[in-house]
Amino acid sequence: MKKVAVIMGSDSDFPIVSGAVKTLKEYGVPFEVHIMSAHRTPEKAAEFSANAKENGFGVIIAAAGKAAHLAGVLAAHTTIPVIGIPIKSSTLDGLDALLATVQMPKGIPVATVAIDGADNAAILAVQMLALSDDALAEKLAQDKMKMKDGVAKKDAAIQEKVAEL
Amino acid sequence: MKKVAVIMGSDSDFPIVSGAVKTLKEYGVPFEVHIMSAHRTPEKAAEFSANAKENGFGVIIAAAGKAAHLAGVLAAHTTIPVIGIPIKSSTLDGLDALLATVQMPKGIPVATVAIDGADNAAILAVQMLALSDDALAEKLAQDKMKMKDGVAKKDAAIQEKVAEL
Amino acid sequence: MKKVAVIMGSDSDFPIVSGAVKTLKEYGVPFEVHIMSAHRTPEKAAEFSANAKENGFGVIIAAAGKAAHLAGVLAAHTTIPVIGIPIKSSTLDGLDALLATVQMPKGIPVATVAIDGADNAAILAVQMLALSDDALAEKLAQDKMKMKDGVAKKDAAIQEKVAEL
Amino acid sequence: MKKVAVIMGSDSDFPIVSGAVKTLKEYGVPFEVHIMSAHRTPEKAAEFSANAKENGFGVIIAAAGKAAHLAGVLAAHTTIPVIGIPIKSSTLDGLDALLATVQMPKGIPVATVAIDGADNAAILAVQMLALSDDALAEKLAQDKMKMKDGVAKKDAAIQEKVAEL
Amino acid sequence: MKKVAVIMGSDSDFPIVSGAVKTLKEYGVPFEVHIMSAHRTPEKAAEFSANAKENGFGVIIAAAGKAAHLAGVLAAHTTIPVIGIPIKSSTLDGLDALLATVQMPKGIPVATVAIDGADNAAILAVQMLALSDDALAEKLAQDKMKMKDGVAKKDAAIQEKVAEL
Amino acid sequence: MKKVAVIMGSDSDFPIVSGAVKTLKEYGVPFEVHIMSAHRTPEKAAEFSANAKENGFGVIIAAAGKAAHLAGVLAAHTTIPVIGIPIKSSTLDGLDALLATVQMPKGIPVATVAIDGADNAAILAVQMLALSDDALAEKLAQDKMKMKDGVAKKDAAIQEKVAEL
Amino acid sequence: MKKVAVIMGSDSDFPIVSGAVKTLKEYGVPFEVHIMSAHRTPEKAAEFSANAKENGFGVIIAAAGKAAHLAGVLAAHTTIPVIGIPIKSSTLDGLDALLATVQMPKGIPVATVAIDGADNAAILAVQMLALSDDALAEKLAQDKMKMKDGVAKKDAAIQEKVAEL
Amino acid sequence: MKKVAVIMGSDSDFPIVSGAVKTLKEYGVPFEVHIMSAHRTPEKAAEFSANAKENGFGVIIAAAGKAAHLAGVLAAHTTIPVIGIPIKSSTLDGLDALLATVQMPKGIPVATVAIDGADNAAILAVQMLALSDDALAEKLAQDKMKMKDGVAKKDAAIQEKVAEL
Repeated sequence: MKKVAVIMGSDSDFPIVSGAVKTLKEYGVPFEVHIMSAHRTPEKAAEFSANAKENGFGVIIAAAGKAAHLAGVLAAHTTIPVIGIPIKSSTLDGLDALLATVQMPKGIPVATVAIDGADNAAILAVQMLALSDDALAEKLAQDKMKMKDGVAKKDAAIQEKVAEL
Repeated sequence: MKKVAVIMGSDSDFPIVSGAVKTLKEYGVPFEVHIMSAHRTPEKAAEFSANAKENGFGVIIAAAGKAAHLAGVLAAHTTIPVIGIPIKSSTLDGLDALLATVQMPKGIPVATVAIDGADNAAILAVQMLALSDDALAEKLAQDKMKMKDGVAKKDAAIQEKVAEL
Repeated sequence: MKKVAVIMGSDSDFPIVSGAVKTLKEYGVPFEVHIMSAHRTPEKAAEFSANAKENGFGVIIAAAGKAAHLAGVLAAHTTIPVIGIPIKSSTLDGLDALLATVQMPKGIPVATVAIDGADNAAILAVQMLALSDDALAEKLAQDKMKMKDGVAKKDAAIQEKVAEL
Repeated sequence: MKKVAVIMGSDSDFPIVSGAVKTLKEYGVPFEVHIMSAHRTPEKAAEFSANAKENGFGVIIAAAGKAAHLAGVLAAHTTIPVIGIPIKSSTLDGLDALLATVQMPKGIPVATVAIDGADNAAILAVQMLALSDDALAEKLAQDKMKMKDGVAKKDAAIQEKVAEL
Repeated sequence: MKKVAVIMGSDSDFPIVSGAVKTLKEYGVPFEVHIMSAHRTPEKAAEFSANAKENGFGVIIAAAGKAAHLAGVLAAHTTIPVIGIPIKSSTLDGLDALLATVQMPKGIPVATVAIDGADNAAILAVQMLALSDDALAEKLAQDKMKMKDGVAKKDAAIQEKVAEL
Repeated sequence: MKKVAVIMGSDSDFPIVSGAVKTLKEYGVPFEVHIMSAHRTPEKAAEFSANAKENGFGVIIAAAGKAAHLAGVLAAHTTIPVIGIPIKSSTLDGLDALLATVQMPKGIPVATVAIDGADNAAILAVQMLALSDDALAEKLAQDKMKMKDGVAKKDAAIQEKVAEL
Repeated sequence: MKKVAVIMGSDSDFPIVSGAVKTLKEYGVPFEVHIMSAHRTPEKAAEFSANAKENGFGVIIAAAGKAAHLAGVLAAHTTIPVIGIPIKSSTLDGLDALLATVQMPKGIPVATVAIDGADNAAILAVQMLALSDDALAEKLAQDKMKMKDGVAKKDAAIQEKVAEL
Repeated sequence: MKKVAVIMGSDSDFPIVSGAVKTLKEYGVPFEVHIMSAHRTPEKAAEFSANAKENGFGVIIAAAGKAAHLAGVLAAHTTIPVIGIPIKSSTLDGLDALLATVQMPKGIPVATVAIDGADNAAILAVQMLALSDDALAEKLAQDKMKMKDGVAKKDAAIQEKVAEL
């Protein structure tokens, strides 16, 4: 199976990004996690991305905050899908990272998920890999069913809280 | 090859969405184009999405403006990747559609591209399909090279304009 | 009397939404509270809304955060009024939920109240029911008078605090 | 049948507000249209609202731009539902009017629709009146069906445009 | 000397508004403080403002949050200057109150100060009264000098902190 | 009578600022109009403001766009009231000028009016001068009455347009 | 003298960027203009920047719109100052480009000027070069004086327009 | 070597600004730190800036929050480069300071760094001075290498955390 690369711009992003890693583990998808920066280690990021396909990666997930160039820079060097997670930092509530990630010019898409949406980035990666992997597709469908059950249970539980008001 | 569904919420979105259709044609990817609305034809949208995988679709591209629920609603009914194109409308410069498309809750990702970024939505869909299609992957790589050449030509051409200043 | 449905996308919204429930209790309006998600349980949400009128509901209140599609999705399946409460989440200070709730396309209105404005959602629902219920209308008028008295008392009380400065 | 009041802050709002008037005419709902300003004719606005219920009005629709206080000021004087239409003006793309209309304090709700969403304001008013008027409710349901047909026709029509690309 | 009215929409605004009251005390300007709401006590607010000039007020300071209509509503009923203080509330970081206060339509100005800028509202009121009161004008000029001295002292003090780095 | 200074940062602001000048003429208030820039002619601006009181000015109106420092810089050098008009420029729809004008630090208020709100700046200046000028106060009151009449006439006129729909 | 590199992401940016080129010509500063893209020609951009110092460049000016990564990517490969010009594109009024340019992480600054502020980018580059070039510094000082004269002339000219009102 | 001036509007900015001071110390660049305000001590700020070049300063760094005029006002009086640090304050998350700093009019650039980006302001100042100082340039290059090493170490360290998930 193709691997997923999870790249973050700084180790301070890990508390958020760990959600993506856990999700990939749950799906049994092989992955690598790296800290690389579009600005501090641009050569390494470029090299990683340029060789990602050859090195067995199918999807790259990139998380960065502020002027979040990481996903776009990685996308510039590869033709495999790049998923961007905008990370909220201490100012502007994540709007800067969102716009810097999603507003990519024609020719170089970044599949952007919600601000701090690491879990969804991993699910999206799994959905992409599942296009040619029936077992993954089946597991995605099962999890979707479980999610429905989870909401139903919460719906049942909320009735008690309502009664207490 | 799996098909790409291009769904738009209104025919007024077509001038933008046509960019995605053209790109899919250039890549020889089979596709269907439909107008469906999360709000005006919710049953049709739900049914289409729920059956999309079975009906041979690999990716859904959804374009909508304002409170752009279309991509999210389609994503709710399927486990194949859904790509969202936020469409700029007459107020708020596309910010409403961007936030309504990208800020999806945990469990239901939408791969969001730039406001009015229809071409990139199609390229992203092709990248996903190319994960298991070497010919598509090769064509993506070639187009990336052509893009570089295009910039180089423009760089040459700009020198004249600079000289004229 | 027609019932009010209070639907929230997640149980994490309950601390806010409980304000609406309490207000409905105070007015003696019959209600049901449910957790349903436009994205996680779309069929249930659609079914609930499609049958709401027949099941004796007069108004639906829907609360959701981030890409808040819940109110719009419920409104798509019914012709009874749907009131939307945008819920503030961890990023963007509620702006995403506000725009995703209020910017509905032509044909499918959502009566949107302030971010986290659960009390007002309930009052608005009562105002709608009071159009054909004189007792409710009378109670609304009385509460409006009490509100005036409350402000008058606070005005009196503030004079002491001012004196202490 | 109860009347709907359509109040706008300035005659420059009429090109937008006329959409609400047309919709009310189509539904055969009795209505009055007035220009009143929260700031220029505050006494008249207060008086109109305070007497609206007694004068046979069931719903008030209020449209205003910029620091759009009109809907809130009318809501302050009545207990019948007030629907607010934020009007886009020459600066800030309607965001000012949206926030000034929707962010009402506890106790005084305004049912806010999209920026320039006059048609939806009228439909919402009809939905409220239809709570006790089966004929109106029936017409709303029929129009919802027509809307579906309209989208289906546009879906058919778009196939030709797609073929021409 | 003419009095200054300090009106706030809710007693929860007092921690901010108290800054204005203290400043007025320091200048020895007579004032009254009231809690009145554009929405909860609209008649009282209208009456107060309509009689303010006759009752000896020269300036009105109005503080409100969210859809901050208070300053505008007071300004609608008087021709004495109204100063608006937008109050930051739990969502949107004060932007809603700022826009709802400052974006007044032609004919009814509100002199808006910074979000939570209560001290400046009082100074501005004093500046207005000082137009015909030389003693106040003199005190404003002296305070401006003291402010300069204060900065100079802080500049001296900062040198130590810099040395410690 | 004290004069009003109308200062603008650039002659490109004149189409907006002329609204203030016309209003001052209508009120018969003496005024001077100048182009001065906080950035291009800072000494002149500082000198003008520092001497404004002595030179017979009672109020300064300052209009500027983008990083609109003009009003704040003038306010730094005087204790007479300074009114700021944020001017909309080619980007950001006036939000930059609004924030740069209104968000003044403690001690140095700027009385900010709406973006491009030149007429209101002049009316506000007249309101300030009218604090010690009964004739001006009377004219303000009369104009307020005329404004009411104007709205009443427009209300009458709109009935025809409504009938034509 | 060290050269200035003027890099733009697309030839569609040239109408704005030409302002920087003209200013550099006026100052007699040697320069090169290139079209390079952080996303379409990332290797070329990286190589250019990595060699810029050695190739005689003292400053790089980079202009880009939307998710404007160009300035940041160039700054990642060099230690000479990089000036960023955010370019307004068809959506979001330049806010995306501004945030993507200015919000750089610790260690890699980009000296950002106003949206579409090409002239100022060039002046800033000249100011940097003038740190070790007295003739340039002298010319900057002279131009500053001329700018003052220009404003003074406009101030004189506006008096006629004011008289005509 | 030319000195760097670090000017802040208030001593409350020092916790952020100290980052710039530390960085300058590390580079061995001579500097002075001052508290001066564009609004509270405008004459001092103007005088400092007007004499900065003569007094041996090569670059000015200015930090301010809210309506952050300080950098622009200093830039108005000098032709040496001025770097602006927008400081986040209690409202609007730094957006006000960013726009008030960066959106400078033609002729008077301010080299703006990220909100609270004090370290980068210092690095940018060093980059400017390094244009004519090979030792500084060498140290910048070395630090850039160290930064790469730092990221590589963090990349190694993150692998353990990933394993623990």
